[in-house]
Amino acid sequence: MSRVYNFSAGPAVLPEEVLREAAEEMMDYKGSGMSVMEMSHRSQVFDDIIKEAEQDLRDLMNIPDNYKVLFLQGGASQQFAMIPMNLMKNKVADYIVTGQWAKKAYQEAQKYGKANKIASSEDKTFSYIPDCSDLPISEDADYVYICENNTIYGTKFKKLPNTKGKLLVSDISSCFLSEPVDVAKYGILYGGVQKNIGPAGMVIAIVREDLITEDVLPGTPTMLTYKTHADAESLYNTPNCYCIYMCGKVFKWLKNMGGLEAMKERNEKKAAILYDFLDQSKMFHGTVVKEDRSLMNVPFVTGDKELDAKFVKEAKAAGLENLKGHRSVGGMRASIYNAMPIEGVEKLVEFMKKFEEENL
Amino acid sequence: MSRVYNFSAGPAVLPEEVLREAAEEMMDYKGSGMSVMEMSHRSQVFDDIIKEAEQDLRDLMNIPDNYKVLFLQGGASQQFAMIPMNLMKNKVADYIVTGQWAKKAYQEAQKYGKANKIASSEDKTFSYIPDCSDLPISEDADYVYICENNTIYGTKFKKLPNTKGKLLVSDISSCFLSEPVDVAKYGILYGGVQKNIGPAGMVIAIVREDLITEDVLPGTPTMLTYKTHADAESLYNTPNCYCIYMCGKVFKWLKNMGGLEAMKERNEKKAAILYDFLDQSKMFHGTVVKEDRSLMNVPFVTGDKELDAKFVKEAKAAGLENLKGHRSVGGMRASIYNAMPIEGVEKLVEFMKKFEEENL
Repeated sequence: MSRVYNFSAGPAVLPEEVLREAAEEMMDYKGSGMSVMEMSHRSQVFDDIIKEAEQDLRDLMNIPDNYKVLFLQGGASQQFAMIPMNLMKNKVADYIVTGQWAKKAYQEAQKYGKANKIASSEDKTFSYIPDCSDLPISEDADYVYICENNTIYGTKFKKLPNTKGKLLVSDISSCFLSEPVDVAKYGILYGGVQKNIGPAGMVIAIVREDLITEDVLPGTPTMLTYKTHADAESLYNTPNCYCIYMCGKVFKWLKNMGGLEAMKERNEKKAAILYDFLDQSKMFHGTVVKEDRSLMNVPFVTGDKELDAKFVKEAKAAGLENLKGHRSVGGMRASIYNAMPIEGVEKLVEFMKKFEEENL
Repeated sequence: MSRVYNFSAGPAVLPEEVLREAAEEMMDYKGSGMSVMEMSHRSQVFDDIIKEAEQDLRDLMNIPDNYKVLFLQGGASQQFAMIPMNLMKNKVADYIVTGQWAKKAYQEAQKYGKANKIASSEDKTFSYIPDCSDLPISEDADYVYICENNTIYGTKFKKLPNTKGKLLVSDISSCFLSEPVDVAKYGILYGGVQKNIGPAGMVIAIVREDLITEDVLPGTPTMLTYKTHADAESLYNTPNCYCIYMCGKVFKWLKNMGGLEAMKERNEKKAAILYDFLDQSKMFHGTVVKEDRSLMNVPFVTGDKELDAKFVKEAKAAGLENLKGHRSVGGMRASIYNAMPIEGVEKLVEFMKKFEEENL
């Protein structure tokens, strides 16, 4: 077995300890005589798994009692419809468009009411976060929507927008559990787990209880109604059981690592190694304005497409995988999620230095 | 490691060989240096996995070229909305209600048009399949809907309904890959994979190409539009990658077992062991009329609730797990899917004989 350093933007690296445990438990989970994949979702043994996963997440994020934790299928893309279908009572919502995912959410919402783009950073390839201190929030807006960390562009809201009293809905897919958040500031926080938590195939939505009602738009499918899942504690139908189990293991790992304060410190340290190098390199340059840089996704370029391609190829040969940037930004991107060890980032910077020396 | 015989109705038993391989590949899939859970769904290595899985399924089921294979999230319950949203052009559909799942599908369809219950077996706790040779099919019906194998009640359509030329849509969740089917007889066949194929968290929908259009009901979410997934070959957004990988392994296993003809023979042999015993037992009785019996799900009762409970408890102690029947039927249910070895059914019947001797 030889593991690489995997800088994929998602699905992404998972903690080795977690994978090892999963492999060990594959044929027989804790004396149950079966794999977690083979268990009835109504069984006691699975009930313990899902309840413990939820509790560990609540502990990690300090989730207030008036928020429900929902394990849902369909990815963030399905939330793009589910959110307006459940929240657009006035049929008005304000979107801050800071990347491809926020844009898709904004476009999908137009099916269900008046979605307003109240700010955007598309003018500069989404390389910054717009000033959101005094935006033209709609008077009758049902919510204000953001994508808090932009996986493709490598930006992050360091400060939440001033929603002028309106509900904040946030896609936190690529910064989920990377640092502490104040859940009470949001109406809904949600994210696909396949970036910073577990395997693909699940979204975790943290939804304030008063937003969970039967009063949804006409034609909203039962499965796209938050109340369906909240009432059934995410067991209305068979959930992605194995993903819940894997996420639960990652929650335990995070607790063992010291929780989200410790992860934040570790993530800042990791990101600084890379950003500090970028800031002094004569060859590599970050693409994001400094104050909006993500701790999780770090895009960078040489300015020369052929050189970029050479770098990605040689890095791969050196065991540094998935460094090719998204086509809309070009160049490279290193996603350095929670499970990326500090040694991975050090190796990357070491390799970049060597590459710079050899190719400048 | 000590494995039990797991008669769960789903999630359910998986082939031991498949689980063992998955465990072995957990830390490093075929020299990639990463787990399948950690791979970008856009990577070459994952592309090979999903393409091979689809091809193997096409081979197994002999799927005609004019049908798309879609790997979707949300379970059958989400299909209950997705089907009318995509197919109800005339806003009329006919439902044959042979159990709880068909009933739920029928109820959900009422959100989107006129859903007619054209036949039902609810009068006798869904213990039979109604005569479907000459039903009052609606003239403008967009489709006729069935649930082909009823997991809870243990019935199966041995003959498809006469739809009088209308499109047939079938939920095959609990008989998926248990025997050959003639795909060309259906407009859509679909099923949750967590019963007879893989881990929970995915539906496979096999959809005739001409039914895949942009002409869906207004307000249909992008993610609930078949065309979205067909155009992107199930990679519109991140799918349940690990589930696709596991299903792919099961497809290989089925091919090695000799394909669906061989599985049918094996399943008939397995089911006969149990049904033959039930037909001569003085204590245990099947709950389904003989001609409609499922090969996959076998409900049975003693007629005495306390005795049923005693049986389930003692069977569990003997390593025969998840034999408790669904609350709406009571008694016991043995789900004997593809991956249940013949020895499991033999052990069960042996145990039933012994229990009968001791308790009659």
